[in-house]
Amino acid sequence: SEPINVGDYLLARLEQLKVTKMFGVPGDFNLGFLDLVEDHPSIDWVGNCNELNAAYAADGYARVKEHSIGVVLTTFGVGELSAINGIAGAFSEMVPVLHIAGVPSISQQKTKPMLHHTLGDGRYDAYIKAAENFSISTAILTDKATAATEIDRVLTDCITRARPVYLTLPTNLVYEKISSERLKIPLSRLPPPNDPDTESFVLDEVVKLVKDAADDVVILVDACAIRHDVRAEVNELITKTGYPVFSAPMGKTAVSENYERYGGIYVGSISHPDIKEQVESAKLILSIGCLKSDFNTGNFTYSIPTARTVELHSDHTKVQFAAYQGIGMKELLPLLTARLERSAASNVTIPDFSAAVPNEADDVISQAWFWPKMGTFFKPKDVIIAETGTSSFGILDIPLPEGSVFVSQILWGSIGWTIGSTLGAAFAAQDVGLNRTILFIGDGSLQLTVQELSSMLRHKLKPIIFVLNNSGYTIERFLHGKHRKYNDIANWKWTSLLSVLGDQDGTLSKSYTVNNKEELSALLQDATFAKADKIQLVEVMMPMHDAPRALVQQAELSGKTNAYVAI
Amino acid sequence: SEPINVGDYLLARLEQLKVTKMFGVPGDFNLGFLDLVEDHPSIDWVGNCNELNAAYAADGYARVKEHSIGVVLTTFGVGELSAINGIAGAFSEMVPVLHIAGVPSISQQKTKPMLHHTLGDGRYDAYIKAAENFSISTAILTDKATAATEIDRVLTDCITRARPVYLTLPTNLVYEKISSERLKIPLSRLPPPNDPDTESFVLDEVVKLVKDAADDVVILVDACAIRHDVRAEVNELITKTGYPVFSAPMGKTAVSENYERYGGIYVGSISHPDIKEQVESAKLILSIGCLKSDFNTGNFTYSIPTARTVELHSDHTKVQFAAYQGIGMKELLPLLTARLERSAASNVTIPDFSAAVPNEADDVISQAWFWPKMGTFFKPKDVIIAETGTSSFGILDIPLPEGSVFVSQILWGSIGWTIGSTLGAAFAAQDVGLNRTILFIGDGSLQLTVQELSSMLRHKLKPIIFVLNNSGYTIERFLHGKHRKYNDIANWKWTSLLSVLGDQDGTLSKSYTVNNKEELSALLQDATFAKADKIQLVEVMMPMHDAPRALVQQAELSGKTNAYVAI
Ligand SMILES: Cc1ncc(C[n+]2csc(CCOP(=O)(O)OP(=O)(O)O)c2C)c(N)n1
Ligand SMILES: Cc1ncc(C[n+]2csc(CCOP(=O)(O)OP(=O)(O)O)c2C)c(N)n1
Ligand SMILES: [Mg+2]
Ligand SMILES: [Mg+2]
Repeated sequence: SEPINVGDYLLARLEQLKVTKMFGVPGDFNLGFLDLVEDHPSIDWVGNCNELNAAYAADGYARVKEHSIGVVLTTFGVGELSAINGIAGAFSEMVPVLHIAGVPSISQQKTKPMLHHTLGDGRYDAYIKAAENFSISTAILTDKATAATEIDRVLTDCITRARPVYLTLPTNLVYEKISSERLKIPLSRLPPPNDPDTESFVLDEVVKLVKDAADDVVILVDACAIRHDVRAEVNELITKTGYPVFSAPMGKTAVSENYERYGGIYVGSISHPDIKEQVESAKLILSIGCLKSDFNTGNFTYSIPTARTVELHSDHTKVQFAAYQGIGMKELLPLLTARLERSAASNVTIPDFSAAVPNEADDVISQAWFWPKMGTFFKPKDVIIAETGTSSFGILDIPLPEGSVFVSQILWGSIGWTIGSTLGAAFAAQDVGLNRTILFIGDGSLQLTVQELSSMLRHKLKPIIFVLNNSGYTIERFLHGKHRKYNDIANWKWTSLLSVLGDQDGTLSKSYTVNNKEELSALLQDATFAKADKIQLVEVMMPMHDAPRALVQQAELSGKTNAYVAI
Repeated sequence: SEPINVGDYLLARLEQLKVTKMFGVPGDFNLGFLDLVEDHPSIDWVGNCNELNAAYAADGYARVKEHSIGVVLTTFGVGELSAINGIAGAFSEMVPVLHIAGVPSISQQKTKPMLHHTLGDGRYDAYIKAAENFSISTAILTDKATAATEIDRVLTDCITRARPVYLTLPTNLVYEKISSERLKIPLSRLPPPNDPDTESFVLDEVVKLVKDAADDVVILVDACAIRHDVRAEVNELITKTGYPVFSAPMGKTAVSENYERYGGIYVGSISHPDIKEQVESAKLILSIGCLKSDFNTGNFTYSIPTARTVELHSDHTKVQFAAYQGIGMKELLPLLTARLERSAASNVTIPDFSAAVPNEADDVISQAWFWPKMGTFFKPKDVIIAETGTSSFGILDIPLPEGSVFVSQILWGSIGWTIGSTLGAAFAAQDVGLNRTILFIGDGSLQLTVQELSSMLRHKLKPIIFVLNNSGYTIERFLHGKHRKYNDIANWKWTSLLSVLGDQDGTLSKSYTVNNKEELSALLQDATFAKADKIQLVEVMMPMHDAPRALVQQAELSGKTNAYVAI
């Protein structure tokens, strides 16, 4: 086979993983590689405004484009460190992202001159040390002889473990020639196989518990069902058995929210009372891919005894109190489904998961009215993104349509993340044939990363962006400092942002302010608006001290456990 | 003495260090402490748009407010990691910045629940490990008994070593009561004293070399003269001896550029030929606080033999080939000055450091014309800030007026940094009685951190911001990829930014576009403009493929040493 240079080898692997976009910012330690990217037939360079936004975009891309990965390219020191919070978020939330840092040549790494972007003290390994904390695996390329195996190793870790990996690409190595032989074998995304004896023992145990529960079984689906790629397997399990299904906030849309046996979101004591009742009273809970973080569990208020729980994870299984390391759900689920039958209780009713638009006397856009109203606007296959803040809580109670994809960052919760991730998600939505990309973001959060709206315009993406203008950090006001100045922000001309950030002649975008229920209702009914054939921004005027039900309750719970000393 | 709570102890120390502003972003792990900050009589909370910008601002504040420090407050994980590149820059460039991260309570740190902003795997120390790479010292507060000594320890390191320090402040510790006794003794900013025997030996050696050189001595002043606080000592040395003085780019304005014996910027082979000649032919070079990074030395092209060099540093001295550890310049300089006499050669002429505005046939704003023209606009005590790019190279050849302060990031070179640092610098300029704050930034760089313009407006600061609109990353084009798309950026409506980002009614700001020499000249002559009594932004239209002399030469040199493979 033809020799290939290291840079192109890397790109060939990314192409095999169906990567079509690379995010990042140029810098003089990655320009040589960028020539290859720009010339690549199927991978496009998306120049971002800054590196944090680029990392966020790679994360959003990877979430929506399942079976692929997100890629971000930065430059030595200044660029890679700017991206690190985005990478840490992908680590925390288990998103497969490759971070490529363009670094000085191998000889410079040995002689350690005081180059720009260094710490001035010769510590060329400091950025690597920082990155290691937030990567499941790192490859420090130092030699063309091992470059291909190193690239393959981290990419395999990235796709099988669904977490970020970090790769340094020295300027001089990009054009070194290596064998392309390995490219003939695609990288495997299969997790390590389960041990057959343990697996069959576990299977018997679970089946026995199911039998004992006499069909009083509930399935709870969470984040890792999405991240570790078992949505299809879960679907077969639930449709065959007919058990009631619920999901945790991070698992929202893992299972279709229109599915007749789907009951809505379980989030401990914050759940709607009938959901809480049905989940917590079941004799057995089959929990798939759970991730028990504070905001994903109503501040750790699950009231489900371990004795009534089976937990399926990507790399282990828990049956009541027993843990079985190495028994992963990807293989276990189909075997379990095969052993189970249609539940006798499959016609027992399930709380209807719906959200009626309330009749309110005034015309103010309240949180209680806004979210159900938005529920009427969504269409099948929409990508729906909610920023940390009132948005990520408000959307939970709203059923999303068939085939839609919900994207949020409930564990990591870095505000501003959605602007980058919407960029990435909108690209991915194009690739995989999804419908509109719709973002809900607070005025406070938008200020962190606003410039990336510019990249959406530049690449002719067409998300609908609802900016909740409630005069500052409302979520914080509910946690602490209700009337504090530190929770205020500057008010911007939100509806001029798109025109200033790139829509020079006003043809690419449209912006709106809605001051009351009537205006929002009218806009949502407007067919041109709903078609989303240009990028649109809607400033939604909302009261400063209003929050969705779930946030109010969460804030009360955090107040109890966290040591905020109020004065 | 009265007991004091830990949060107020920290603020009392900052007040003693003359800190008047704290930068950062609220988050639920720092809100309790923020109550104290907001209520503090002399320290103001500057809520930033995002944490990277906040860190940049703290850096800019510390640079201009000598003898104080910059302070940035962030929240656990998401906030602190967003700031890390700003902190690393302060480390690299030796700027005293305190980074306070609000973190979970001490009991949560022990039980390690899966809180939001965690990595989901219980590694509560990961952010500390990352921070350690970029701090000279860290204090992980875990106990009220040691809180005061820990705070004092890192603050002392910060002020004596002029580098960032990192402090974690657990939510529950903020209001714990401790003794305020220690506050009676202010923290010492004196470096460790020199050993007297070594010092007097070194002094004799240096004086001997000076005598041998028969007054053919040149003084070269660099970054560390500013950072390690010896400007006054240097001034006495140069005025007493009358030796010709030059500075490196990072030392620009350490010595007044109007001083009659000042000859301009020495930067290796990129220097103006007569500067190069005079520096390199001297029999002895007294180099004070040098920092030999690539961009600060014309890509390592100093042509000064070690045998003819004496190097004075903050913590060591080098006399020809001999190094004397622990002999710092703060104490050594006055002793040296006392031993030297007025140079017999003190009337030998020095190349005149001036920059005439060239006569060019066309009306295009060329780099060659722009910088000398701007030179005519500066006034004494202006703070002049240049972003990495054509700006940081263009400004070098322009003499800056008496008492002015030059701010740039020549070693770290993280673009976007100047928007944050201008915010901090403008606050500091108010505190220390400096004049206008004037920023030069490229269109590409502004995109990284643009939102912080909003904070300038919110706090009624009045910088003048020149945005060099040359359609993208011109500096990069000179390094690699002259016609590559990855060096293009979206064009914004630059002159609408201020009105969109907070100047709602148009009274706080003014923006201009200058398309040609005539328009710029007219604007610079306008007295209202020059008075700078509101924030002003000037979009300067410049050719895409034009760069200042020094950048052209630097690019040629980097091209020779760096392994960019052009294709
Ligand atoms: C990077 C980062 N900085 C700070 C925070 C702390 N924080 C969490 S939510 C929030 C306020 C969000 O305000 P906004 O976006 O306006 O939302 P809403 O008003 O709808 O609650 C802040 C500051 C964070 N989560 N991430
Ligand atoms: C955080 C960061 N990302 C990327 C770079 C690489 N970089 C250095 S200069 C530059 C372009 C600057 O362009 P602009 O601000 O327009 O300056 P000019 O056109 O005047 O040279 C880039 C991308 C960097 N130095 N820092
Ligand atoms: Mg808000
Ligand atoms: Mg430019």
